[in-house]
Amino acid sequence: MTKTSVDNPQAASGEPLLPAIQSPADLRKLPADRLETVAAELRQKIIETLSVNPGHFASSMGAVELTVALHYVFNTPDDRIVWDVGHQAYAHKLLTGRQERFSTLRTLGGLSGFPNPMESPYDTFMAGHASNSISAALGMAIADRNTPENRDRKTVAVIGDASISGGLAFEGLNNVSNNPNNLLIILNDNDMSIDDNVGALHRYLTELTTSAGYNRWRFKTYNFFKRHGLINENRRGLLLRLNNSLKAFISQRQNIFEGLNIRYFGPIDGHDLPRLVRVLNEIKDMEGPRILHIRTVKGKGFEEAEKNPTTWHAPGKFDPETGERLKKPTEGEPPLWQQVFGNTLVELADQDERVMGITAAMPSGTSMNLMLKKYPARAFDVGISEGHAVTFAGGLASAGKRPFVAIYSSFLQRAYDNIIHDVAIAGLPVTFCIDRAGIVGEDGVTHHGLFDLAYLSCIPGMRIASPRTEEALRNLMRTSLELDGPLAIRYPRGKATTPDWKTPMRPIEVGKGERIAGDGTADVAVLSIGPEGNDALKAAELAIEQGVKADVYDMVWLKPIDGELLREVASTHKRIITLEDGSTTGGLGAAVTRSLTENGFGTIPVVRLGVGDKWVHQGTVEQLKKLCGYGVADIVAQITRPLQ
Amino acid sequence: MTKTSVDNPQAASGEPLLPAIQSPADLRKLPADRLETVAAELRQKIIETLSVNPGHFASSMGAVELTVALHYVFNTPDDRIVWDVGHQAYAHKLLTGRQERFSTLRTLGGLSGFPNPMESPYDTFMAGHASNSISAALGMAIADRNTPENRDRKTVAVIGDASISGGLAFEGLNNVSNNPNNLLIILNDNDMSIDDNVGALHRYLTELTTSAGYNRWRFKTYNFFKRHGLINENRRGLLLRLNNSLKAFISQRQNIFEGLNIRYFGPIDGHDLPRLVRVLNEIKDMEGPRILHIRTVKGKGFEEAEKNPTTWHAPGKFDPETGERLKKPTEGEPPLWQQVFGNTLVELADQDERVMGITAAMPSGTSMNLMLKKYPARAFDVGISEGHAVTFAGGLASAGKRPFVAIYSSFLQRAYDNIIHDVAIAGLPVTFCIDRAGIVGEDGVTHHGLFDLAYLSCIPGMRIASPRTEEALRNLMRTSLELDGPLAIRYPRGKATTPDWKTPMRPIEVGKGERIAGDGTADVAVLSIGPEGNDALKAAELAIEQGVKADVYDMVWLKPIDGELLREVASTHKRIITLEDGSTTGGLGAAVTRSLTENGFGTIPVVRLGVGDKWVHQGTVEQLKKLCGYGVADIVAQITRPLQ
Repeated sequence: MTKTSVDNPQAASGEPLLPAIQSPADLRKLPADRLETVAAELRQKIIETLSVNPGHFASSMGAVELTVALHYVFNTPDDRIVWDVGHQAYAHKLLTGRQERFSTLRTLGGLSGFPNPMESPYDTFMAGHASNSISAALGMAIADRNTPENRDRKTVAVIGDASISGGLAFEGLNNVSNNPNNLLIILNDNDMSIDDNVGALHRYLTELTTSAGYNRWRFKTYNFFKRHGLINENRRGLLLRLNNSLKAFISQRQNIFEGLNIRYFGPIDGHDLPRLVRVLNEIKDMEGPRILHIRTVKGKGFEEAEKNPTTWHAPGKFDPETGERLKKPTEGEPPLWQQVFGNTLVELADQDERVMGITAAMPSGTSMNLMLKKYPARAFDVGISEGHAVTFAGGLASAGKRPFVAIYSSFLQRAYDNIIHDVAIAGLPVTFCIDRAGIVGEDGVTHHGLFDLAYLSCIPGMRIASPRTEEALRNLMRTSLELDGPLAIRYPRGKATTPDWKTPMRPIEVGKGERIAGDGTADVAVLSIGPEGNDALKAAELAIEQGVKADVYDMVWLKPIDGELLREVASTHKRIITLEDGSTTGGLGAAVTRSLTENGFGTIPVVRLGVGDKWVHQGTVEQLKKLCGYGVADIVAQITRPLQ
Repeated sequence: MTKTSVDNPQAASGEPLLPAIQSPADLRKLPADRLETVAAELRQKIIETLSVNPGHFASSMGAVELTVALHYVFNTPDDRIVWDVGHQAYAHKLLTGRQERFSTLRTLGGLSGFPNPMESPYDTFMAGHASNSISAALGMAIADRNTPENRDRKTVAVIGDASISGGLAFEGLNNVSNNPNNLLIILNDNDMSIDDNVGALHRYLTELTTSAGYNRWRFKTYNFFKRHGLINENRRGLLLRLNNSLKAFISQRQNIFEGLNIRYFGPIDGHDLPRLVRVLNEIKDMEGPRILHIRTVKGKGFEEAEKNPTTWHAPGKFDPETGERLKKPTEGEPPLWQQVFGNTLVELADQDERVMGITAAMPSGTSMNLMLKKYPARAFDVGISEGHAVTFAGGLASAGKRPFVAIYSSFLQRAYDNIIHDVAIAGLPVTFCIDRAGIVGEDGVTHHGLFDLAYLSCIPGMRIASPRTEEALRNLMRTSLELDGPLAIRYPRGKATTPDWKTPMRPIEVGKGERIAGDGTADVAVLSIGPEGNDALKAAELAIEQGVKADVYDMVWLKPIDGELLREVASTHKRIITLEDGSTTGGLGAAVTRSLTENGFGTIPVVRLGVGDKWVHQGTVEQLKKLCGYGVADIVAQITRPLQ
């Protein structure tokens, strides 16, 4: 029995429609009653492709009807759709000229997994980080309003119920009604972020259903007035008065969006395609900011995904018929870095009552779910609110707790000021566990964590370290409990190295690196930080096969950097290679150069391996490191290159 | 005739009360009917001190009664008050053991102008950047909830109506009801941020008055039930049901805060001290998060300030009797940097329709008010929403506009991810006009703009420049219109140098520095960026008096840096001194070292002047630069130091 529910008789009976849709203009030529067939074909295409080429599945499945309706009703790309986050944009990619390339999704040189303006004019704005769509779309809507020839262009922001809880989205909402514009916001409410949604706004949205009757009534009344010519869009003053008096007349019920001066419609069923098209047509030419609240089911059309949307957010490969996920056996394999973090945090919490855990909407992505499960009163998922996560941690620390904040490197950029102002100035003992640091692979340019070493380095008092081994991560976490100020520990996405990683923990010395290969007598020294040190070890072995020795040093700490070790290395070697999984502007390479030049060792050549001053797009981690010149072979080449 | 209205007969008749209040414990010994006298004396003290020692005046004047009431009702410092921003905390400082030192406010070695936990246990959290109080206080409240011996401690966040519109505050509000806690939020609504308040939430708050009757009724009913033992705080379920049924019973009116599951009280008059004390006593032991909305008048008790709260936010010196502000004549003086920016932006807007301006709650601080006045449809004050400001600019730029975003350096940290994700990745032509870059002086540690060069340097494609002269600022702004990507222009607080600054504008070459003193034959070269170059020129002249020549170079651009010029300098000099008004970790010194070592000039000694790896507190700009080792005398010393 097939697990998919998208087998549409219409699709089966006639010629498939999708291949002929090379742009939304083709879609708009279809009669409205064929749209559901298009939706079914889109789902089928997504299932087929994603089953072998993993990606973000459930969100896109839930947004198929919305996508079809938007491109059908709006004149894209002249009208603009701004997708928030972009997990939901696969149907959008398929309808906008990218069917043939769809199987290259998230691969090197292929399609980005997110909307990307450099890929298509239909991808109007960079997506990947949540909650930016309202602000960006408002900018477009106001730009059009200020450009006579563009005044009829329309802008639609599509934002999920999780993203709308981010502070940036609120700032956008708060500004939407300040200046004349015709922005339409679609709140795609699937009651589900990557993990369970949290926060009061979420509960509020759930309860909004109860007001649907009132809103329906109000909308009908409005349409009645409009049809009979009693109001028109040019007489906005009258319209507003009507709106206000309707409100007053009925029950003075007012929801948050109307409190923010945004006309609210909904909620309506986001899988009811005819109705979506009808409602969008009805509201698309209205003046002024509006929000349409639709309800959708994440994973819609694929039974397993509907049942388990968290698992199916990004399920990996799966059987498109049975829905069985094709997971490699993990027995005897090393753990994920995040799992080492998650388990170790629980161990520390067992031992020390002060230990608290915080994640911003990524309990399973960071393995904070382990702490949330065992110590629900001491662990917090604050939703898509990285800034709050860090300031909240500052509050906990100032009241005597030891919070561990686990956030992905690129998302922590959202909390930069909070790190400085709310933690570092007062020297509060918050431990930042920076997951997904370095190249992350398939998620691409918005998700690589390349800047954390640089943006943290300049903060006075900040300690920054990265473990090469599971044991080192555990020891660093343990060490943080001994410190009187903040500590940032960065580790990458993916697997660590040691299957048997549950070693005893001990505090380690701050700012101390060590030699991990060689006897200190080689000409070349490789200085690495983090798991890259394992690549350095491999490279040193390969270099020996070519007859060249290298000493390898794991610096462990970027700040404070081990100046003594650096002096020793500089005075006994002829070339230094620094190796880091991040931007070489401001990270290890920069810190080593600074320390050496300050100590009179400016003459020794330093080769800084890592990500140069460029954007890195999607691909496998290995491909991308090679592309950036710090794959194992690149390290070997730098070791074996003749001394000048 | 005196302009103050605080001359209280009670205060005049008896012994002054304030000197005997060395801590809030002393205040709490007073009978309630003496509190208004204390308030009057506090106002008098603030007026007297601020009239000769400038500071943030109007906010503190407006919060006097609230401050007295909070310290009277709550058991500080065991109970915690978290002040948002901290402009309003002078009465708090005066009541918490800092009367004698109050005249040292904002001076080197004196009291900080903001609450600062390193200064007093009553200053529970770092303040200065808006909107963090709810998140921080929530952390404290939840920490206490998780610590048996602290369960009775209470936490109060005090936040203004402008700060509460920031995304961080919303994230806090959205999380307040997620876990059990007894956080009390005071919304100090003075209808006034530094400039006019903006945004839908603000309008919403204004309209909330209309629901005061309902809330009063509900609160009275609640108290009636409570007095008669029908409910108590331990029976929270019943309480909530009561609350809900009251809501349902009356009119289903619900405000935004209740939508977010926070019990709402108010609005009440924040200058009615007896009532404040009564209400705080009534609600302080309630369980669960609550918000008390009070209305106050900024500048309360000083007529001129009440009439002109924007001017009196930080009025400078003034006559305490007449309210006349003692301004120095500015005829023939150089303009403020911000004025050069503000006027030039209007000129560019005259010439180019694409030019738009954005400020985040600082129209007068950035001089964006000039553009807001002349082109109201093309200039935007988005309120305390730096993240939105930048993403909104990205939206404008993606739709063909040329937005100039003027934000203070330290506040731009709030928008770091927006700069990367929403502008830089797609290479959108947004111009960041970074005001208050470098040491700002009296506002101290939270306000210095020391990190922008470092945190922007690592962003691929970001161009970064700083003008030494007004002409250069104008040319850089003009240049940005020719560029196809982002540009950051940083300039400091305070005065530029040229009285006659309205020079014609022309685009300049990107990445090009120049020699501005000497003939290139000296042993020592000083490389500077920004207005520090003028100090370098002075230093070079002073060095000549000591018989030592130096060549001075204005790099203008940090990124791309002028590698050719650097090679020339390095090959012809014996010492390089880099000079920048910011952190030497990641700024000009780092970029020069990187470039030199990459090009085989690692042997030349580089002395990096600027702010080292430490926090800088308040003082005059001159004092602080000296303290950090980059005053003019320090540059002279580095130039004249013998070559090794």
